Amino acid sequence: MPQGKVSVVPDDGLTTRQRRRQAVLAVHTGHGKGKSTAAFGMALRAWSAGWPIGVFQFVKSEKWKVGEEQALKSLGNVTWHKMGEGWSWIQRAGTERDHAAEAAEGWAQIKRDLAAETYKFLVLDEFTYPMKWGWVDVDEVVATLADRPGTQHVVITGRDAAPALLEAADLVTEMTKVKHPMDAGRKGQQGIEW
Amino acid sequence: MPQGKVSVVPDDGLTTRQRRRQAVLAVHTGHGKGKSTAAFGMALRAWSAGWPIGVFQFVKSEKWKVGEEQALKSLGNVTWHKMGEGWSWIQRAGTERDHAAEAAEGWAQIKRDLAAETYKFLVLDEFTYPMKWGWVDVDEVVATLADRPGTQHVVITGRDAAPALLEAADLVTEMTKVKHPMDAGRKGQQGIEW
Repeated sequence: MPQGKVSVVPDDGLTTRQRRRQAVLAVHTGHGKGKSTAAFGMALRAWSAGWPIGVFQFVKSEKWKVGEEQALKSLGNVTWHKMGEGWSWIQRAGTERDHAAEAAEGWAQIKRDLAAETYKFLVLDEFTYPMKWGWVDVDEVVATLADRPGTQHVVITGRDAAPALLEAADLVTEMTKVKHPMDAGRKGQQGIEW
Repeated sequence: MPQGKVSVVPDDGLTTRQRRRQAVLAVHTGHGKGKSTAAFGMALRAWSAGWPIGVFQFVKSEKWKVGEEQALKSLGNVTWHKMGEGWSWIQRAGTERDHAAEAAEGWAQIKRDLAAETYKFLVLDEFTYPMKWGWVDVDEVVATLADRPGTQHVVITGRDAAPALLEAADLVTEMTKVKHPMDAGRKGQQGIEW
């Protein structure tokens, strides 16, 4: 892969070193596989750089992503929050669930963590959906991310990312499904699919 | 994400359990980011399943992927081979390098490991390039993979995957670059780009 070949040298008065320290907002979108998986792969690099990592998982999953969670937790320096289990920082009494309220609580915590610079690398997994469903305001997300202090890298995954989010992102990759085993009636494979 | 929704039930006489144990050949191609990163993310799941993992990295890299290598090695159960360092199983005397010969040596070792079922999850990283450049024969790769014994999952990454390889694959994802910070003259970010 080409290393650091830039096509334009920006007239921003920054040194190369300063530019290397800019925070990245990445979005993995599209209907193909690998959006979350690539985000967790990026977390490997962040871990290797010694950065505290925060994962906020916005969609409930039984088996899906448990492998990544287990492996990244084994490495350490990773805090994993799951909306599907009512978030890690909230003690919930009843069993009544309000997904819209839970998503808003997740986003409120992310705002607090961004302000506090709790992490240096954040995965907001499947975070496009609460925005799509109107549970979290896209413009507020974009404004909050634009103003985040320090060098906090953020990766947002999920289908149907909002245009304003794509506009704000530094790096957008679309994963396209070309062929999938389930099309041929094959079942998900343990260790591959979850 | 939908779990195990199949659109066709195959008339192959296999039980669901048998179908779950079928080996997967995945190809991550396209010109976008995330091809290798998603493969290493899949390795997290394979690790969590307790599978021995073999990585064969076909393109030399100075800093690129060092983070993933360090993190996956920390987890253990991962063997990492790099062509750029002359492969781990070969003692090289001189400094003369023949990339075509080295790529062929790498493929020969993969064939031995597939026959011996050394690993249950293999990442053949940037392996599309030696095929594209004619250093490794595509038809032999396809035939060897089709005949591999047991349940050995294989992920091949790289641009410009050969049509015969895509045809043989169970799962093909194309990563498309929508936007990249280097387009705006930004430098690669440590912990993000490598």
